[in-house]
Amino acid sequence: MKPLESVRVIDLTQILSGPYATQILADLGAEVIKVEPLWGDKARQNGPMVDNRSTYFASLNRGKQSLAVDLKNSAGKAIVERLVEKADVLVENFRPGVLTNLGLGYEHLKRQNPRLIYAACSGFGWGNPDSARPALDVVIQAMAGSMSLTGTPNGDPIKVGFSVGDIGAGLYLALGIMGALELRHQTGHGTRVDISMLESQVAFLENAYARYFATGEVPGPLGSRHAVMAPFQAFAAQDGYVVVAVSTNAHWQAFCGVLDLPQLVNDDTLTTAQGRIEHRSRWEGMVAERMLSETAQYWLERLAENNIPAGPIYSVAEASRQPALASSDFFVNVDYGGVSFRVVGTPLHFDRERAVLEGDVPELGTQTEAVLKNLLGMDANAIHNLYDQGVVR
Amino acid sequence: MKPLESVRVIDLTQILSGPYATQILADLGAEVIKVEPLWGDKARQNGPMVDNRSTYFASLNRGKQSLAVDLKNSAGKAIVERLVEKADVLVENFRPGVLTNLGLGYEHLKRQNPRLIYAACSGFGWGNPDSARPALDVVIQAMAGSMSLTGTPNGDPIKVGFSVGDIGAGLYLALGIMGALELRHQTGHGTRVDISMLESQVAFLENAYARYFATGEVPGPLGSRHAVMAPFQAFAAQDGYVVVAVSTNAHWQAFCGVLDLPQLVNDDTLTTAQGRIEHRSRWEGMVAERMLSETAQYWLERLAENNIPAGPIYSVAEASRQPALASSDFFVNVDYGGVSFRVVGTPLHFDRERAVLEGDVPELGTQTEAVLKNLLGMDANAIHNLYDQGVVR
Repeated sequence: MKPLESVRVIDLTQILSGPYATQILADLGAEVIKVEPLWGDKARQNGPMVDNRSTYFASLNRGKQSLAVDLKNSAGKAIVERLVEKADVLVENFRPGVLTNLGLGYEHLKRQNPRLIYAACSGFGWGNPDSARPALDVVIQAMAGSMSLTGTPNGDPIKVGFSVGDIGAGLYLALGIMGALELRHQTGHGTRVDISMLESQVAFLENAYARYFATGEVPGPLGSRHAVMAPFQAFAAQDGYVVVAVSTNAHWQAFCGVLDLPQLVNDDTLTTAQGRIEHRSRWEGMVAERMLSETAQYWLERLAENNIPAGPIYSVAEASRQPALASSDFFVNVDYGGVSFRVVGTPLHFDRERAVLEGDVPELGTQTEAVLKNLLGMDANAIHNLYDQGVVR
Repeated sequence: MKPLESVRVIDLTQILSGPYATQILADLGAEVIKVEPLWGDKARQNGPMVDNRSTYFASLNRGKQSLAVDLKNSAGKAIVERLVEKADVLVENFRPGVLTNLGLGYEHLKRQNPRLIYAACSGFGWGNPDSARPALDVVIQAMAGSMSLTGTPNGDPIKVGFSVGDIGAGLYLALGIMGALELRHQTGHGTRVDISMLESQVAFLENAYARYFATGEVPGPLGSRHAVMAPFQAFAAQDGYVVVAVSTNAHWQAFCGVLDLPQLVNDDTLTTAQGRIEHRSRWEGMVAERMLSETAQYWLERLAENNIPAGPIYSVAEASRQPALASSDFFVNVDYGGVSFRVVGTPLHFDRERAVLEGDVPELGTQTEAVLKNLLGMDANAIHNLYDQGVVR
């Protein structure tokens, strides 16, 4: 049994934040019917392509169904209205107001189905001067302050090297939907869920904002360092980098022992993280010099023996081969139009079973006919007409 | 009505990943009873401190209750067992096996309460050679590949400037708990939820792994650039930076129009993102030069007029003042031991009301007596003895 196996989701989302959220819902067992425009989710064009199939799309759309519908056509709109009657959740990531202007706004749809959960994700949320502004990941990273914290002082702007602006919002969107499902158990009716990508990203930076509000000091980029813990950063060893994460005085003492630097153990100004941050010059150069004198493997073994959190900096290739990932069923192979893609599964485990759904990635419109026939009960003639008139694909 | 208002959570977590998850549950209306060691959650020591209260802790523990208990003492263990009988969820972020060794493992606790949801978050998950290995945020960022994607080619290692390794896991932990609550509606009994920080972080990098698996090419850091879209990056204007996110050919055409670079519009090799990535030298220098010739404000206005996603790179201070955040109730003031802290609220909205809980941040043990008395029904004598024997605080 899966948590959401009795939940049907009508998914109007494209690209990343929304599809990431509905991928989670699908992994939790929901039936996700992806309603795409006639030209498909834009992500189907995002490279790299393998036999004309998008890697980007494959990674986000496992086990969903695809129905291609023209939402600007009244017959197309009627299809969505009828789907909503049979659904638990509708998810969209248009800019605020777009669906309302199409005649498919929440106020209208909830009259069709009072149990409907209507979940919307947009760049800046509703009801503020930036609501209508378009946003993609890097814009959110820039405007939430994420880029101001990432990189080196006075260095060129650095983006977080993955789409945390979209994916963070996708996780909050999924959480909001789960919350609304829980509410519906109590009240019997649906609710509207709203998520702003900007707010979601700021929620990831919580500590930086709390520090700024408390002290008035504007946090800046710190390379690989941490703002309030030290040493909590990368050091170069003879043949590569090692990250070390010291969060207690006991670990600090042990760390100095591993490095054979007794003069640091005896330095009373360095027994707290705050002291080690204020007096970096008293230890950081010495530690860096010592780390350079041995191999990464040497340090990793000594640090592990002393239970000090530490690790190598892995590339994606190396990371994929590490024991904690390679031996599990975390990476899954999925079929997309006859091409097999290997993608990341879900970290969600229930009773030690991974929640992952190993369904195919749909081609555009693969389930159009089946959904119209089986879910909406249309006859062959009506379906034929919709195809003929270019309303569906 | 709040989604989780009938849900009671026994929260044994410390520092960040677990407290972030239970903050979300609290914001959704759950009663969160934070069971701390006698010396408190380590995060209470994380600076910056204001009147001896931790900003770090304040940001993560709004509206929770605090009960300080010695888990190594049998009377302390009995308190947790009895709490579990009255609870829906237990959350912990010890290393795998720690609670079992204390006699408080899942198999034992579920006999006390078959409806219990037991949710565990650890660095590397269970049942693999790294399970017992300690991990903090930067170790996870390093070993998941996040650091390998962030920064500049051949530059020093750069960490994502906020604790995405912890917070990503916290979000998956909250999602797993919500999933288990949904399951319990169907089955009537609880489940065990397991989350690995490493897997959660890799799930954020999904696209980088999918690309590597599809092409064999190991992705590296790209500064502010995107791996499969372009231009999707920062440019220096006369007086600051502007990020631009072009994801379609229409936006590319419009962007070239804004920059008054018709020769790029007419270059057929640049009509797709893949083409623009393969032939960066044909446009990137030209675009960068043009961007430098005007102010950031000038470009932001032109790009906005043309509906092209773009934005300034804000510091945390600037970000906090932008209209989409400043005019809302997103930032909240909370009291922690008489000190007022301003912190980030939740992005979750239901029916256009923010789900945020504006409760106090508890001092260590503030609710110890009340919980023992009201929830466990202990009399004054028994409670007095527990304090006397140093079992609670």
